[in-house]
Amino acid sequence: MYSFTCDYTEGAHPKILERLAETNFIQEPGYGEDSFCASAKERIRKAIACPEADIFFLTGGTQTNCTVIDGLLKPFEGVIAAKTGHIAVHEAGAIEFSGHKVLTLPQHEGKILAEELSAYLKGFYADDTWPHMVRPGMVYISFSTEYGTIYSRAELEAIKSVCGKYEIPLFIDGARLGYGLASPAADVSLQDIARLCDVFYIGGTKVGALCGEAVVFPIGDAPENFFTHIKMHGALLAKGRLLGIQFDTLFTDGLYMEISRHAIDMALKIKEIFASCGVPFFMDSPTNQQFPILTPDQMAALDGKVAYEIWERLPDGRAVTRFATSWATKPEALEFLALLLPNS
Amino acid sequence: MYSFTCDYTEGAHPKILERLAETNFIQEPGYGEDSFCASAKERIRKAIACPEADIFFLTGGTQTNCTVIDGLLKPFEGVIAAKTGHIAVHEAGAIEFSGHKVLTLPQHEGKILAEELSAYLKGFYADDTWPHMVRPGMVYISFSTEYGTIYSRAELEAIKSVCGKYEIPLFIDGARLGYGLASPAADVSLQDIARLCDVFYIGGTKVGALCGEAVVFPIGDAPENFFTHIKMHGALLAKGRLLGIQFDTLFTDGLYMEISRHAIDMALKIKEIFASCGVPFFMDSPTNQQFPILTPDQMAALDGKVAYEIWERLPDGRAVTRFATSWATKPEALEFLALLLPNS
Amino acid sequence: MYSFTCDYTEGAHPKILERLAETNFIQEPGYGEDSFCASAKERIRKAIACPEADIFFLTGGTQTNCTVIDGLLKPFEGVIAAKTGHIAVHEAGAIEFSGHKVLTLPQHEGKILAEELSAYLKGFYADDTWPHMVRPGMVYISFSTEYGTIYSRAELEAIKSVCGKYEIPLFIDGARLGYGLASPAADVSLQDIARLCDVFYIGGTKVGALCGEAVVFPIGDAPENFFTHIKMHGALLAKGRLLGIQFDTLFTDGLYMEISRHAIDMALKIKEIFASCGVPFFMDSPTNQQFPILTPDQMAALDGKVAYEIWERLPDGRAVTRFATSWATKPEALEFLALLLPNS
Amino acid sequence: MYSFTCDYTEGAHPKILERLAETNFIQEPGYGEDSFCASAKERIRKAIACPEADIFFLTGGTQTNCTVIDGLLKPFEGVIAAKTGHIAVHEAGAIEFSGHKVLTLPQHEGKILAEELSAYLKGFYADDTWPHMVRPGMVYISFSTEYGTIYSRAELEAIKSVCGKYEIPLFIDGARLGYGLASPAADVSLQDIARLCDVFYIGGTKVGALCGEAVVFPIGDAPENFFTHIKMHGALLAKGRLLGIQFDTLFTDGLYMEISRHAIDMALKIKEIFASCGVPFFMDSPTNQQFPILTPDQMAALDGKVAYEIWERLPDGRAVTRFATSWATKPEALEFLALLLPNS
Repeated sequence: MYSFTCDYTEGAHPKILERLAETNFIQEPGYGEDSFCASAKERIRKAIACPEADIFFLTGGTQTNCTVIDGLLKPFEGVIAAKTGHIAVHEAGAIEFSGHKVLTLPQHEGKILAEELSAYLKGFYADDTWPHMVRPGMVYISFSTEYGTIYSRAELEAIKSVCGKYEIPLFIDGARLGYGLASPAADVSLQDIARLCDVFYIGGTKVGALCGEAVVFPIGDAPENFFTHIKMHGALLAKGRLLGIQFDTLFTDGLYMEISRHAIDMALKIKEIFASCGVPFFMDSPTNQQFPILTPDQMAALDGKVAYEIWERLPDGRAVTRFATSWATKPEALEFLALLLPNS
Repeated sequence: MYSFTCDYTEGAHPKILERLAETNFIQEPGYGEDSFCASAKERIRKAIACPEADIFFLTGGTQTNCTVIDGLLKPFEGVIAAKTGHIAVHEAGAIEFSGHKVLTLPQHEGKILAEELSAYLKGFYADDTWPHMVRPGMVYISFSTEYGTIYSRAELEAIKSVCGKYEIPLFIDGARLGYGLASPAADVSLQDIARLCDVFYIGGTKVGALCGEAVVFPIGDAPENFFTHIKMHGALLAKGRLLGIQFDTLFTDGLYMEISRHAIDMALKIKEIFASCGVPFFMDSPTNQQFPILTPDQMAALDGKVAYEIWERLPDGRAVTRFATSWATKPEALEFLALLLPNS
Repeated sequence: MYSFTCDYTEGAHPKILERLAETNFIQEPGYGEDSFCASAKERIRKAIACPEADIFFLTGGTQTNCTVIDGLLKPFEGVIAAKTGHIAVHEAGAIEFSGHKVLTLPQHEGKILAEELSAYLKGFYADDTWPHMVRPGMVYISFSTEYGTIYSRAELEAIKSVCGKYEIPLFIDGARLGYGLASPAADVSLQDIARLCDVFYIGGTKVGALCGEAVVFPIGDAPENFFTHIKMHGALLAKGRLLGIQFDTLFTDGLYMEISRHAIDMALKIKEIFASCGVPFFMDSPTNQQFPILTPDQMAALDGKVAYEIWERLPDGRAVTRFATSWATKPEALEFLALLLPNS
Repeated sequence: MYSFTCDYTEGAHPKILERLAETNFIQEPGYGEDSFCASAKERIRKAIACPEADIFFLTGGTQTNCTVIDGLLKPFEGVIAAKTGHIAVHEAGAIEFSGHKVLTLPQHEGKILAEELSAYLKGFYADDTWPHMVRPGMVYISFSTEYGTIYSRAELEAIKSVCGKYEIPLFIDGARLGYGLASPAADVSLQDIARLCDVFYIGGTKVGALCGEAVVFPIGDAPENFFTHIKMHGALLAKGRLLGIQFDTLFTDGLYMEISRHAIDMALKIKEIFASCGVPFFMDSPTNQQFPILTPDQMAALDGKVAYEIWERLPDGRAVTRFATSWATKPEALEFLALLLPNS
C-alpha cells in the first residue's frame, strides 16, 4: 500500500542520513554553536544572496511560527492571516498561547489579496475605536499555501507594498517553500522570496529533513536576543548539529530544489492520471498537493490499496480528497495508482 | 582534542542511526501515530512495569518541562523547585512564559529536602494572606540533579509523601535519568521512579538520542486532550517516527541502561584520575558530571588539549570545573586526559 | 449640549453617592471581605432566587470577561462568541493575552443562533484534525448585545441545550443586563438568566454605578480558588467596599431594575422622536441603544448641540448613528433633541 | 473598636466624595478622555515639575504593576525586585501571568542595595550561559517599602546609576508614596522621585482615594500605544472620571501630602505609645506602618478592642505585629489604644 496522505510519511533524504552517520562522533558544542550550523547558514546566505542574513534553526512549523510572531509583535499586537492560514486553524492556538490574536482576512484559494489587506488596514485606523482593538502588527502568508497555491511575484510585491505603507513586517511561512518554488507556475525564486519579505522560513520537515525549519531575517535584523527568545519558547534544540547537518546537506549542490522539483514532477503526474480519467479537481493546484474530487466508486477502487486524505465530503456522495507528493514519492507508486483507477 | 564540556557533544548511538536508515522509506502517519512510537511506548511500559502508562514523546528538555508543568497546573498555581533547578535558572523563563511562577526552595547539592518542602507548604497555608500568593501546585525535582547528585529511595518517598499530603503532583525531570539510575550510589530503579512520582520524563537527548524526551504518566492519568496541549506548546513533532524509532531502539535489549552505565564507568574513572593527582572535588557526584577544583597550573596543562566547563572561579585562582561523560565517551579520551595532568 | 454617545457619561446614581458618604468612615476589611459586599451578595442571591450562588465583584467589563473566561477554560481551549461580540472586537485582545482564542460565529443583529452553534460544534468534532485545533470550551453571549438586541427565552434555552450536549458552560456578559431585562421585548427575568446559564455578570458600570460588575455562578460552582485567580488578573479591588456598597444599593428596593426601566423609557421616546420624523433605523433595537440612520442635513441640525456616535458612514452620505440612553438620561434632553430635528 | 490592620479600612477623603457629588451629572467621555483626568494630569505634571510627563490612571496596585512591567519588558526579560517586594510575594503571580519572571535580590528591611544590584547584573553577564537565562530588563522598588522603610536620596541615586549603566529602567511602586515622602526621615521630594526613576506611580488607594493609581512617565516616554496595552490588561476604567476626579482633588491645594503627613503624625504617636510602654519594635519604620513586638499579655489587653495584624509569631510566644495608620486615622483611636496598654 502506498500513502499520499501527506508530505511527511518517510524519514529523510538518504544523503542526510549518510551525513549524520559520517559526522556522528565529531564532538561539537550544543545549541546551534556547532560548525555544521555555521556552514549551513553560510550556504543559505549564498543561496538567497543575502550575506548579512540572520538565520536560526528550529525544529517544527508551529513552533517556528509562534516563536517568530511572538518575537516581532508588541504585546498588544496581532498577526494578520488568511482565514485558512495554518496559524489560524491548525496550530491549536499556539499564537494565542503566546498572547497574540490572529486577525483573519478572507482567503482566495488559500491566499490573501493585497487590496483586501489594504482595505482592512485602512478601515482599522479609520475606526475611532481602534485603540480598543488589537493592532495589526504583522502579515503572515504561506508559500505555498495550505491549499497548494502560490503567490505570484506581482501579488507578493503588492502585499509587501501594503506592509511597507503601514510599517508592519511580512512573514512567509515556508513549510512547503521548496514545493512552491519548484512549481512550473512559480515566477519567483528563493532570492525573490528573501527580497520580498521581512522574515521567512525554509521548511525542512516536509522537504527532505527529519525535522527542522530555517528562519531567515534576510537583512540581518533579527530581534535582539532572539536566541533567548527561542529558548524561552522551548524551541532551542540542544543538539543543534541535527539541524545544522540537515540544512547543510539540503543546501549542498542544490539538493533542496532538486528534491522539491521531484515532488512537483510527481504531483503533475498525479494530476495527469486523474485528469485522464475525467476526475475534476477542487482547485487547480500547481504544487505538491492535489485535490481531486472522487466518486464513491473511485474511492472504493483505491480503498485499502492507496491512502489519501478526505478533505470534505460533498452532499452528492463524492469527496474532495488530497493527494500529497514529496521528495520521497516513488514513480512506481504513481504507476500503481494509475492502474487502480476504474477508467484509466 | 577531546571535549568533556557536556553530555551532548556527539550525535546518537549508532544503533539509532542504523535503525533510522533501515526504516527510512517505510511510510507512516505523522504526529506520533506511527508504529514506531506505538512499539516504543509498549517497551517503555514494560520497562517501568506500568501497563496503563500514558506516554508522549517530545523533542527537548525545556519544552518538556514547560508543557508538562503548564498542563498540570491551574492558571494561578506555581511549581516548587530547588533554587538550582533547571526550570528555575536555565530555561530562559519558559515556565513564566506559560504563566506560572517557579517557587524556589533551598538546594542541598542540587536537591530539595522533604522536611523543607513540608515546612514551606505548612507555612504557606498558615499565612492568612495565602490567597494573595501563588499557590504551590506541583513539585519539580531532577534525577540526577543539575549537580550530578541523586535522590535516595528514602528521600523520594519522603518527598512523595509530602506531595500526597497536600495533593500536589511530583514531577521528575529525567533529562539525565539514565545516568542517575546507572550510578552505583543509586538505590532506586526505573520502576521505582515510575512508582514514586506522578509524572516524569526519560531523557533521550543526553542519553544516546539525537533529540527526544519520553513523558510518562505511570498510572495513565495524563491530562485530558494532552495531545492538543502539546501542539499548542509547539512541541508536537510532525515526524514523530524520529522520536519513536529512537526510544524504541533505546528500550530494546536494555540499551538505555547499558549506555548509561558506560557513562558512569567513564565518570568514575575521571574521578579516579583527578583524585590520584590529589585534586579535590567541589562535591562528591556519583553520576556523569564531575566537579574537580583545578589550579591554574592544572588548567594550563589541559588548555587547548581537553575542553571542559568552568563553573565558578575561586578567589584563590583555582576554578570549580565540570567534566561530563556520556554514552559516547571513549576510554582513550580518559587515557589522554590522565597523561596531561602534571602530577599523574 | 446633551450627549447620547454612550451609557456611561455620568457618575453614579445619587443613592450610591449618598451611601458612600454615609458609610465613609466605617472601618471595614479589604478585598471584598467587608460587610457591604456580604450584604450585596445576599441581596443578589435573593433577586436571582439562587441561595447558593457564588458572587464576586470586579471593576470593569473587559477585566471581568477575561478573568471569568480564563478561569473556566483549560489552557488549550477557546471561547465561542459572535463575530461582533465585545470580546472578539473591542477588548484589545484581552482574551488572547490570557492565552485563549476567540472562536467566532456569524452574528445576526449581534446574536448567535443555536443551530449555527450546534453545527459548528458538530463540524468541529467531525473533523479528524480537531486535536490540532483550539477546542471550544465555552460559549459567550451578551445580553443585551453590542447591537442592543436581546435573546428570547426560547433562544437562550436552545443555546443552553447545545452547551449542555457538549458539556461546555454558557457565559452571559451582562454589561447591559438591566437594559436588556427592562425592555418590553424581553420575555426573560433576572431569575431566568440565572437559570439559563452557568455564569453571568450583572453590569454596574453602565447601569448606575461608578464602576463594578457582579460575577454570578448561580449554583455556587465557582472555580476553586477563584479569589486568587481574580488577584492574579489584577482584578481584585483593595477597597472592595466601593463595589459592595454600590451593588448593595442597586439591589435595595429594586433600584437596579427601576433605573434600567427609565433608560428604556427614554430609549423608546428617542425611537418615537426619530420615527416621527421619518428617520429609518439600522435595526430595530428594543433596548437602550438606538441606531437611527441620519441624513447629512439631520446631522447638521444636531451638530454642536447633541452628541452621538457615528457607527458607519453609508455611501449615500447618510450615517448609521448610535444614541444611547441610560439611568441618567433626562427627559429634557429628549425634548431638546426633538426640537432640533428638521421635520419634527 | 478601632482597626489598625491596614491603610485602606475607610472610604475616601471627604473632599473626594464632595467632588464626586458635585460633578455627578456633568456628561463626560469615557476611558480617561474626560476633563477631570486632563486637569488631574496637569496638576500632577506641575507637582512633579515634569511638563512633558505621560500620565495614566489605573485602578489598583497589582494591576498597575503588571501593566507597567509587561509594557516595558521584552518577552524574554524579567524584573528585578527585593525578595519581599509586593510583586514577588503578594500579587498571586500577576507578573508571571503576563509572562515575566520576578528576579529576586536580598532585602534589607524591605530595600535592595545598589551594590548587590550591581553585583547581580555584573555576575549575570559574566556567566557564559546568560543567554539561557531570563534577562533582567527592569528594576522594581517600592517607596515606601512593604516594611515601611524608605530609600534615601543617595540610595536612589546609586540604584538609578546602576540601572543607567545597564540601560534598564527603574520603576518605583508608589502605593504608599505619600506616606514615604511625608516621613521626617525622607530626604527626597515628589519631584526627586520623578527625577530619579523612569516610571513610577502615585498611590491613591492607600492615600485618600476609593481606588486609583497614577502612572507617571516623567519625561513623556510612555511605550507606544500604552492605552491599548492598558485595555488589553483589563485595566482601563470605563468611567475614567472616577479616577480623574480623585487625583484632581488630591492634587489640589496640596491635599495629597497634607493627608499623608497626618498619617505619619499618627504613626509616630503610635511609636511613642508603644515605646513608652517598653515595647520593642521589629524594625525602626519611619512611615505609616509600625511593627511592635507584643507579649501575650499585651495582645490580650488589646483583644476585641483594637484590631491589628500579626506578621509573625515568635517562638517565645510574642508576636511581631503591624499597626498601620492612614489619612483617616483619628487621634481618639490613638488615645484609646494608649489606655489599653498594660504599662502605660
